[in-house]
Amino acid sequence: MSMGSSLWPPKVLMELHVKNREKLLASLRQHLSDSSRPLNGFVLLQGGEEQTRYDTDHLDLFRQESYFAYLFGVTEPGFYGAIDVATGDSLLFAPRLPSEYAVWLGEIKQLSYFKEHYMVSTTSFSDEIGSVLQQHYQGAGKPLLFLLHGLNTDSNNFSKSAEFQGIDKFDKDLATLHPILTECRVIKSKLEIALIQYANDISSEAHVEVMRKTKVGMKEYQLESIFLHHTYMYGGCRHCSYTCICATGENSAVLHYGHAAAPNDKTLKDGDMALFDMGAEYHFYGSDITCSFPINGKFTSDQSLIYNAVLDAHNAVISSMKPGVNWVDMHILAEKVILESLKRGNILLGDVEDMMAARLGAVFMPHGLGHFLGLDTHDPGGYLKEHFSDLQSLERRKEPGLKSLRTTRDLREGMVITVEPGCYFIDALLLPAMNSPKTSKFLNQEAINRYKDFGGVRIESDLLVTAAGCYNMTKCPREIGEIEGVMAGAPWPAKNISC
Amino acid sequence: MSMGSSLWPPKVLMELHVKNREKLLASLRQHLSDSSRPLNGFVLLQGGEEQTRYDTDHLDLFRQESYFAYLFGVTEPGFYGAIDVATGDSLLFAPRLPSEYAVWLGEIKQLSYFKEHYMVSTTSFSDEIGSVLQQHYQGAGKPLLFLLHGLNTDSNNFSKSAEFQGIDKFDKDLATLHPILTECRVIKSKLEIALIQYANDISSEAHVEVMRKTKVGMKEYQLESIFLHHTYMYGGCRHCSYTCICATGENSAVLHYGHAAAPNDKTLKDGDMALFDMGAEYHFYGSDITCSFPINGKFTSDQSLIYNAVLDAHNAVISSMKPGVNWVDMHILAEKVILESLKRGNILLGDVEDMMAARLGAVFMPHGLGHFLGLDTHDPGGYLKEHFSDLQSLERRKEPGLKSLRTTRDLREGMVITVEPGCYFIDALLLPAMNSPKTSKFLNQEAINRYKDFGGVRIESDLLVTAAGCYNMTKCPREIGEIEGVMAGAPWPAKNISC
Ligand SMILES: [Mn+2]
Ligand SMILES: [Mn+2]
Repeated sequence: MSMGSSLWPPKVLMELHVKNREKLLASLRQHLSDSSRPLNGFVLLQGGEEQTRYDTDHLDLFRQESYFAYLFGVTEPGFYGAIDVATGDSLLFAPRLPSEYAVWLGEIKQLSYFKEHYMVSTTSFSDEIGSVLQQHYQGAGKPLLFLLHGLNTDSNNFSKSAEFQGIDKFDKDLATLHPILTECRVIKSKLEIALIQYANDISSEAHVEVMRKTKVGMKEYQLESIFLHHTYMYGGCRHCSYTCICATGENSAVLHYGHAAAPNDKTLKDGDMALFDMGAEYHFYGSDITCSFPINGKFTSDQSLIYNAVLDAHNAVISSMKPGVNWVDMHILAEKVILESLKRGNILLGDVEDMMAARLGAVFMPHGLGHFLGLDTHDPGGYLKEHFSDLQSLERRKEPGLKSLRTTRDLREGMVITVEPGCYFIDALLLPAMNSPKTSKFLNQEAINRYKDFGGVRIESDLLVTAAGCYNMTKCPREIGEIEGVMAGAPWPAKNISC
Repeated sequence: MSMGSSLWPPKVLMELHVKNREKLLASLRQHLSDSSRPLNGFVLLQGGEEQTRYDTDHLDLFRQESYFAYLFGVTEPGFYGAIDVATGDSLLFAPRLPSEYAVWLGEIKQLSYFKEHYMVSTTSFSDEIGSVLQQHYQGAGKPLLFLLHGLNTDSNNFSKSAEFQGIDKFDKDLATLHPILTECRVIKSKLEIALIQYANDISSEAHVEVMRKTKVGMKEYQLESIFLHHTYMYGGCRHCSYTCICATGENSAVLHYGHAAAPNDKTLKDGDMALFDMGAEYHFYGSDITCSFPINGKFTSDQSLIYNAVLDAHNAVISSMKPGVNWVDMHILAEKVILESLKRGNILLGDVEDMMAARLGAVFMPHGLGHFLGLDTHDPGGYLKEHFSDLQSLERRKEPGLKSLRTTRDLREGMVITVEPGCYFIDALLLPAMNSPKTSKFLNQEAINRYKDFGGVRIESDLLVTAAGCYNMTKCPREIGEIEGVMAGAPWPAKNISC
């Protein structure tokens, strides 16, 4: 406990990764049995390597590759890990470090240290992978390696499968592992949920701290700094899930503001809204939270109108979420609630069903409603299809808005997914909509002109799908009264956000 | 001005990069004239690209490549830049962004914006490089491109020379540019010095803040967080020059502690020393500062002995630095001062000249005395030799300690170089030294045993070589009395560190 926070970083339990491996093994064995294939061979993954900046010796702070982190929990670079499909043994391979390492980089840990710390069956050096796996193998012929190869449907990049000297003495299967391992990651275990909850707790608390310290005249990046400091100082979170988005005024209409070309460097102006999308990561597991609020602490009626439109959408989706519900339907529900509010506010004119048919919702919310969250902010598995006959055919939609969805799946218990409706006034979308005969009739141009420099509002929470519904892991002030109260100094119930 | 700091981020002047280009152009033309080569062709550099994490769409925060930053000052990814050797014109090439960029990432700036902001002669799109350069060319035959290709002597990596579609229509020179541009970077201009001074000012202030907040029972990373927060919140420094080293107790003997495998996660213990090596970066230009102090705020006599040995070395070097002085001699001077102090303290026995001959200094200080500092923490040019007939032959030394030097050059006015002597008790070096007949006789084993878990002390300042000597850009408490005073709450003169 500390004066600045009600939280303290929890002990990391390596059992989490033991259970992740057990889950993969059971799922892989089931798949092999179902396909009448032999239950042997090795799952083999290569962990990440440290990277230097361009041609220099400047080392970027290492962050483990997420599939490898999922199975082995290893924080250090240069490792490999294997799972023996026949025995279930887990084999970790550590880099053989030169003796100078002890002088420059720290104690050279014994293999036995890694075996105990990471709770694996055996540890060897990474230059011994081939011989160790050959020795361990109890089947006939060349041992089979199940390697990780598959598409990340958010980046369109392929995962890099493990490579080592002597891999030609093995048979390789590049097709089987990726969808099975990815599906394991989609459904979170209790221990995984506990880490995501902690990342949410410390990040929610940090968002409240940011709200309280926000003042006209500050720079956007100063609020980023307050968030980073709170989550690291009190939460032990060295990494964020993603680069902080600290957008105010018209910048809040830039969905991924905050990167190097738009670096949170505007001065906070009286009367502007803030949209702060920031989440800390703890032992690889992340959070992804957006709070929107007026910089001066009091909502105007124009701000309230947009804010409550988004909040109603956020709440309507959360009330509807439960296993079996399709995510596209939730996106459409959010759009509809927002359009209805904008119509009630006289910003839109006409029939909401007609607006929906014209895809008007995507003018105000061009991004998807939400995405899986876990070891990656955009956790994979949104468009998995191979090997899962129980899943509906998962095709990316083509329509504006819907095509931005990172998943079209039905919800299942144990999924963690963000709910992040937004309503933005983006010239690049509003101007074409005003000029299109299909959409211009819905737009009250005079009212919309009032929002010219408004930017946008987003409210983002992280939801755990439960057996009967869902649980909101994010504990930030959401109602206008709550936000205005917290910004005026009212206590934000610590009992709700302690672990 | 703000309550938390006497500093405020200064306006960045793009004239700095205009002058950098002028300096390169003059130096390159001189070289071409001297070699009777024609004064035409183009210097062409490719800036850095944004990187995603492994196969995901997680974007790492972009940081520009340093040679490109030197010449063009561009903070955004995806640019190219050229200098016409004949006319001196500077040509910037911006990426052609898709219209969706405006929705997701921000305003698509006009080419005229970049021309004005970066103070270049012309701007075009990067898919037009070939045609624009061909049009611009006034010489005969294929235009010549001076591309950046050369060894970084700290990393042993080669810089990546520019590539673009249509480059086969140009002649290429890979040998000329790198040493000339690197030598430009070695001697800093007034505007460069001002940025390095600011990075030093805010980092010095942050080190003082860290000293004041250090308490038994905290975690090392909490002090890292305080440093990062101070330099970002009040200094506008989003990047650090390097990953923070926050080492306490025996960790302070690990020279590059703080990386992912040794992540500043120890609890601060009463009686331990802290060694905090942290520096912020502002508009690409860095600082590199180490402070060592007792966690409980009071030096013991054993701690004072080692601390003053290092401080005396630090001060002796600074008193001796001036143009013409060789850096190897400074390293040897630091070693000698430390060995003399250890002898006076009865930790070493025998004749210091004999110790020097046995390279005993490298047992206690295995790293080099210091390195150039600028756009990179380990700024290049330490072993430049081609094209500079006025420089002595620069070979890396083979002896322990000396082989770690990142330069063996003579000092010249305008160099910025770190002075960072240290004295460490490193088992991996002390045990062999105790077992070697060449060195064991010097070591008072009983005394050394008292320092078994001591770790080490490093004091690091950033020095500007001036016409007559040098100037210490780092303004931290250094004397034991100053440190104890500041840690007990005494003011640290703000007038010394304001800009
Ligand atoms: Mn999100
Ligand atoms: Mn240094």
